[in-house]
Amino acid sequence: MSTKKISTAVIKRLPRYYRYLGELLENEVVRISSKELSQRMGVTASQIRQDLNNFGGFGQQGYGYNVEYLYSEIAKILGLENHYSVIIIGAGNLGQALANYTDFEKRGFVVKGLFDVNPRLVGISVRGIEVQDMDSMKQFVEDNNIDIAVLTVPKTKAPAIANDLSECGIKGIWNFAPIDLALRDTHVIVENVHLSESLMTLSYRIKDESESL
Amino acid sequence: MSTKKISTAVIKRLPRYYRYLGELLENEVVRISSKELSQRMGVTASQIRQDLNNFGGFGQQGYGYNVEYLYSEIAKILGLENHYSVIIIGAGNLGQALANYTDFEKRGFVVKGLFDVNPRLVGISVRGIEVQDMDSMKQFVEDNNIDIAVLTVPKTKAPAIANDLSECGIKGIWNFAPIDLALRDTHVIVENVHLSESLMTLSYRIKDESESL
Repeated sequence: MSTKKISTAVIKRLPRYYRYLGELLENEVVRISSKELSQRMGVTASQIRQDLNNFGGFGQQGYGYNVEYLYSEIAKILGLENHYSVIIIGAGNLGQALANYTDFEKRGFVVKGLFDVNPRLVGISVRGIEVQDMDSMKQFVEDNNIDIAVLTVPKTKAPAIANDLSECGIKGIWNFAPIDLALRDTHVIVENVHLSESLMTLSYRIKDESESL
Repeated sequence: MSTKKISTAVIKRLPRYYRYLGELLENEVVRISSKELSQRMGVTASQIRQDLNNFGGFGQQGYGYNVEYLYSEIAKILGLENHYSVIIIGAGNLGQALANYTDFEKRGFVVKGLFDVNPRLVGISVRGIEVQDMDSMKQFVEDNNIDIAVLTVPKTKAPAIANDLSECGIKGIWNFAPIDLALRDTHVIVENVHLSESLMTLSYRIKDESESL
């Protein structure tokens, strides 16, 4: 595999390729041309060829792409052949929803612990995992080599928790709190899911559409 | 307000401005310079001036921005002065989490109904709203002028539900199902929250960071 730096735009498109290829695999499709793939995905065939050429010769003239091979190569690029140990901080509805989402585990993100400050939640089990008190969090991360923490806590709590996580060697934070976490001098990767902002974008687009009718 | 077409890139940044201005308002900050705002947001002051100049003269030389005024103007641009009637389809953990998230209601997104196919969920109440059977969905959307449907259903169910919603005049779909909904010949706006893809991006970035160390 090529080791040259891949642009952010390409990287952002890879999970979508991965999703479509996964669906093809489920439907037992063995190979696909860039034209067919482009029609399904609603992008141009030339875009697909360009994107995938970044990673060397996945496609063959007159054959197209081998679905299983391409799927597994993209998985490697995305780091999905690794297994990640995950904790979820905040065991409310959203935290429980994420803990229950078995698709993440299939892709190698294994939930090892759940944490909350709420005494009514501490002790309950979600998919066999007992919710622990926040006081145990730092020790747990260190003892269990946790890679990723999912933050589903109020925005006022998120920065202090992120600092704690950073101190005990977490690699990544999947942040659902509506705040930008400032962890600039660390190697911790923060990926945000700002739900409110997505909803506002929907609102803007609905307004824009209604004004253009 | 200017009526010229605003670029997608600017639109995508507006919710973040809105969030920061909301925080300033909560902290009773009356005015702010583009320099101060840029330091807080981690973008350049010139970017902020350029972005906000799209909407006419919000800032004044030597004064900066009036926080409350700018906040309310951005709200207008985003369509947040409207009230949206919302239903949530899929009343599992994620659907319930979104129903319980009161911040959405504060911004004008009012949940009017919850729907599920699961007989164990039909009849339960979430924040005073009773979960109804999916069979009642279409009639409910028409009778209550529902604007937005939130889809938290399996990907296999999502396309048919999206078609039903489109037929009964929904304006927007906030889609959490891991599938791209093909509603090309309608005016329905689809905004996706693809959680798996966000998690894969985190995975890629963690892998990339560890390789660069």
